[in-house]
Amino acid sequence: MTEAASVKDLAYDPADLWVLDHEDLRALEIGAGILGTGGGGNPYIGRLRAEQAMRDGFKLTILPHQKIADDALCVSLGGIGAPVVGVERIREGREGLRCVRVLEEHLGVRVDAVACEEIGGSNSMEPLMVGAFAGLPVIDCDGMGRAFPEMQMTTYSIYGHRSTPSAMCDVHGNAVLFQHAASEIWHERMARACVVSQGGASTLASAPMRGAFVKQFGIPDSYTQAVNLGHAVLRAQKAHDDPIAEICRVEKGRKLFTGKISDLKRHLKGGFVRGEVQLSGIDTHTGESGSVLIQNENLVFFHDGEMECCVPDLILVLDVDTGEAITTEMLRYGQRVAIVALPCHDLLRSPQALEVVGPKAFGLDVTYTPLKGV
Amino acid sequence: MTEAASVKDLAYDPADLWVLDHEDLRALEIGAGILGTGGGGNPYIGRLRAEQAMRDGFKLTILPHQKIADDALCVSLGGIGAPVVGVERIREGREGLRCVRVLEEHLGVRVDAVACEEIGGSNSMEPLMVGAFAGLPVIDCDGMGRAFPEMQMTTYSIYGHRSTPSAMCDVHGNAVLFQHAASEIWHERMARACVVSQGGASTLASAPMRGAFVKQFGIPDSYTQAVNLGHAVLRAQKAHDDPIAEICRVEKGRKLFTGKISDLKRHLKGGFVRGEVQLSGIDTHTGESGSVLIQNENLVFFHDGEMECCVPDLILVLDVDTGEAITTEMLRYGQRVAIVALPCHDLLRSPQALEVVGPKAFGLDVTYTPLKGV
Repeated sequence: MTEAASVKDLAYDPADLWVLDHEDLRALEIGAGILGTGGGGNPYIGRLRAEQAMRDGFKLTILPHQKIADDALCVSLGGIGAPVVGVERIREGREGLRCVRVLEEHLGVRVDAVACEEIGGSNSMEPLMVGAFAGLPVIDCDGMGRAFPEMQMTTYSIYGHRSTPSAMCDVHGNAVLFQHAASEIWHERMARACVVSQGGASTLASAPMRGAFVKQFGIPDSYTQAVNLGHAVLRAQKAHDDPIAEICRVEKGRKLFTGKISDLKRHLKGGFVRGEVQLSGIDTHTGESGSVLIQNENLVFFHDGEMECCVPDLILVLDVDTGEAITTEMLRYGQRVAIVALPCHDLLRSPQALEVVGPKAFGLDVTYTPLKGV
Repeated sequence: MTEAASVKDLAYDPADLWVLDHEDLRALEIGAGILGTGGGGNPYIGRLRAEQAMRDGFKLTILPHQKIADDALCVSLGGIGAPVVGVERIREGREGLRCVRVLEEHLGVRVDAVACEEIGGSNSMEPLMVGAFAGLPVIDCDGMGRAFPEMQMTTYSIYGHRSTPSAMCDVHGNAVLFQHAASEIWHERMARACVVSQGGASTLASAPMRGAFVKQFGIPDSYTQAVNLGHAVLRAQKAHDDPIAEICRVEKGRKLFTGKISDLKRHLKGGFVRGEVQLSGIDTHTGESGSVLIQNENLVFFHDGEMECCVPDLILVLDVDTGEAITTEMLRYGQRVAIVALPCHDLLRSPQALEVVGPKAFGLDVTYTPLKGV
């Protein structure tokens, strides 16, 4: 047996690690799908890839948010592109690992831990796989507490982290380093243009953050939240309880509407999926009509013509029977769905956060009123 | 006085350097404009910028093609984008220098000399300015012997150089490193998408080449050729001789047509200027009608409905009175022009070159017949 590395060398205590099993992964698929508010990459595809990594002997490990060393180098990563592409064009598998290696080589450093860019959808799985391949844990936090369509929309960026130099790798073997961006928005613009040229679904790792920063500005306990939420839904399904009610209970959410998808407009433009979902009420208690605007994720919900909930609060489109999320690329005419709103994390509600992730940042002429948890 | 560095350290003998003066620069503007076949960036803007650098005390120096050391590190660079943008959005000025510095830092090397990507238009000036700012000479050669719209269309790429890692910098301060591209075409695709996101006119420096490679596969003596051509045109203008005839004499070219621009279609798409120029004959000896297809540069000339000359041979659209080139962004209805064809360099006529720069590479369903020099 070789001598174990010291805790200081590792930047964390191995005893703190949580190693995911197949049931945790199934729960994460459901929970991260729900928190993804329609986006973050297809959770089912993500789970299949993560399962394969586990079968290949890799360990998917999570480190409690407050257990990372202050001076640890943490790299946040995730998929970039349009979910509607990602569900059809399967990744090669090591894109994220290549991103980390390209960054390490460019900066002449070794990364200590992986951070999650967005907990939503398969972007919860991407860091776990990269961490497993690289032998690094994933910190139990993320930069969104949900999913958002653009990269400047993380709490990391909002609270001062500069994402560059960042590395983007694709299925073809291409690797691009955004060495310096004039702003976080410029980083997003250039990376988005580049991912479109790469076919619309790549992986991006941002400049390393120090552990102390991640502890202060990461949205805490995202993985725990997602896995617990998934387990709650699985329990409700098994017990034939109402999973929608269970989600609302666990996440302090509110059911806004129950309806059938009566029309769906969805198109791929500039690397995003944009569109609108029309709903006809099937429950007289919750109203006649609804609609959801989407840009990769669900941005705003109109109820009988009035705006009822908008970003950064979470708008979920859930299968009314199973309680599982229907991501924007899987929406189909005729699906019976519940619209549920969850309050976002307080880190997304500060004035500086609302400038980046509030309705005006999406070109919506509405004023944000924080959803009250029930 | 400090001891001069040894020739070996410099990778060239300072006694071999040719320092350009203002008249050389004016001649280069004309000559590189003509060799640019409509593209390569606006030569007038390029000259103004180069003049400014000279007034600021920088020396624009050229090193004979065969005088660079075999093991010297040579970085080829030039503007990337659409000429129609470049003529309206003036560069900040140090984009090219930043590209070299970003590459040097990334690779941990010091560059010995600058190479020219394309001799056409202001892209002949860009390396001279960067070389001057960095205290490096520019090798008397280029990768095209003309201008072409895409980056894989250099003799460097055609004969085996991999352009990545390359660095692209823009006026905003953004810097992107294309760390690895699956192919030269992938490099072009990603960089083109990125330059569009940066506003359509940036500067790109490719991975260093060894001096021995540049000596073998660079198109030799491009600067000498361009400056001599420019001086010939200036002499003809001064002597009231026919500058078109002088260009044909100096470059072994052939006048194909004399006409008036009767229609002009030009649009900016995917980072390129594309379009078509219609011409009505004004000289009964050279025919009734002509047309030129463009993609940043002049690609093919149709004479009375028949293809008469196409890439990689050079198609020049010249002001019939001055003999100076009218670049594609400066074309206007009513201009009186001569269409002149010049034979391209033999390095562009091999089967492997024609795959990349022949008419089929541009989607043209015509067969290349080498233009014979007269």
